[in-house]
Amino acid sequence: MKVVVLTGGVGGAKLVLGLCHAVPATDVTAIVNTGDDFVHLGLAISPDIDTLLYTLSGKANAAQGWGREGESWGFMAALRELGGADWFQLGDGDLALHVLRTAALARGEPLSRIVAGFARSWGIGPTILPMSDDPVATEIVSDEGVLPFQHYFVARRCEPRVSAIRFVGAEQARPAPGVLDAIAAADVILIAPSNPFLSVDPLLAVPALRQALVDARAPVIAVSPIVGGTAVKGPTAKLMGELGLEVSAASVARHYAGVIDAMLLDERDPPADLPVRTARADTLMHSLDDRIRVARAALAMAGA
Amino acid sequence: MKVVVLTGGVGGAKLVLGLCHAVPATDVTAIVNTGDDFVHLGLAISPDIDTLLYTLSGKANAAQGWGREGESWGFMAALRELGGADWFQLGDGDLALHVLRTAALARGEPLSRIVAGFARSWGIGPTILPMSDDPVATEIVSDEGVLPFQHYFVARRCEPRVSAIRFVGAEQARPAPGVLDAIAAADVILIAPSNPFLSVDPLLAVPALRQALVDARAPVIAVSPIVGGTAVKGPTAKLMGELGLEVSAASVARHYAGVIDAMLLDERDPPADLPVRTARADTLMHSLDDRIRVARAALAMAGA
Repeated sequence: MKVVVLTGGVGGAKLVLGLCHAVPATDVTAIVNTGDDFVHLGLAISPDIDTLLYTLSGKANAAQGWGREGESWGFMAALRELGGADWFQLGDGDLALHVLRTAALARGEPLSRIVAGFARSWGIGPTILPMSDDPVATEIVSDEGVLPFQHYFVARRCEPRVSAIRFVGAEQARPAPGVLDAIAAADVILIAPSNPFLSVDPLLAVPALRQALVDARAPVIAVSPIVGGTAVKGPTAKLMGELGLEVSAASVARHYAGVIDAMLLDERDPPADLPVRTARADTLMHSLDDRIRVARAALAMAGA
Repeated sequence: MKVVVLTGGVGGAKLVLGLCHAVPATDVTAIVNTGDDFVHLGLAISPDIDTLLYTLSGKANAAQGWGREGESWGFMAALRELGGADWFQLGDGDLALHVLRTAALARGEPLSRIVAGFARSWGIGPTILPMSDDPVATEIVSDEGVLPFQHYFVARRCEPRVSAIRFVGAEQARPAPGVLDAIAAADVILIAPSNPFLSVDPLLAVPALRQALVDARAPVIAVSPIVGGTAVKGPTAKLMGELGLEVSAASVARHYAGVIDAMLLDERDPPADLPVRTARADTLMHSLDDRIRVARAALAMAGA
């Protein structure tokens, strides 16, 4: 069973890890948001892709939710002494990815090939594909003006009130090599319970990628990011309120209308009338067993 | 007494530190070799300038002879896992200089201004000037072909047999802002006991810098890198042999002919007939007291 999963960072990575224990890992392809990517201190940083790399290689700092386990911080300490911008944390080990990626991009290597090299070095079984090798930049239109994504998300901790979200470059972006083939060959396509507006929408904003999902022979099944009427973590609920949307699985399902065929809801959610087929499960993913359970529940919907 | 010192890395930095204890540190200007500078993993690295920065801010790893005291190595460990080039050691704290320098150069800032900013952040009293803001690259013509300096020096540990040394870009290079003024205003100009061929010659290969030394009203005094008929450390003696030169202070003095007015010799050296005025002292610089003693002995020659 060939599985494709569209994903952002932390929450999505949990589902991808669960999938790799539910089916052969080599049958899993993660297509990853790159709208969060940015250049910081001259370094090309791909937060969601790196979260996938760390999670799937067993290097992730699970307690912290980002970065590497056992990381050291000598670079940040020296940077601070020199008056460098320190609002974005760069661990010493983490820097290796950024330095090698930046150098490879400068040589003209596409991001997809660079990521494949990292995954190979770390013996990662599933395929990790950036949604595009072309730059797409998520911008937040807020009461503090237009903010680049990481400024909104990290520097301003999602505090500004959001009125709109833009994906600059998405209209022109082509799916990375392998993305369309993976979608066409998939037996099931999942949308991870990542933030629909910040993490999944950039993927859907790439025209050829969205069209491939619409055309896919496989069912497209979203795992709801809403649990018991609110978001598990992160800014999803706050953001939906600011965008004038009801915070509910039905609201997310309407947002994905035309793309998804089904949605896996959390068993705690109130009954709702959704425009697509639904199933229910405990969708919280604290342990690895939880992740495998959610992965299996989503995959089971494909057979139904 | 305004002191200018032309210097490479480790050995020269010792003399500059001694000078800063012999006269007010703010009266000292170090003009530093940039022929060793190179781009590694996309990062702009200035080994000699950084050795000055670390030495004069009290951050240098004295035992190791390069880099920072108390450095950590998380970046290199992660880089190795990813198959990155690991022949050049980049400490976690050290990376902050390289990342900030690379980003600032990419923004169009000249190296001299970047270095001044680092020195200010660390409260360094003396002025540290790169010899030029224009790129100059030392290349080693050897029995293994033409090698970029760091490949010869670090990756190949000075093992190849050298037939010539080139300073690519030197002919077109202009002295960095402040260099010519410092030389013109100096009461004494010292040439540090750095490698004459690898560390001092790049400075002398910048035409306007060399001419300024020739025209200077101040005496130009070299501190001999030869002690007891051989070089204190590094590849100087091996290199002189390969270039067909006698390993002696006289040989170094002849090499500097036309530029220097005097040379401070080590007291252990055999008597020699030099083309310039000489004095003798114990020129070994193990302790800070040694460095101050050598600095004072060199400065005393200016008054003679």
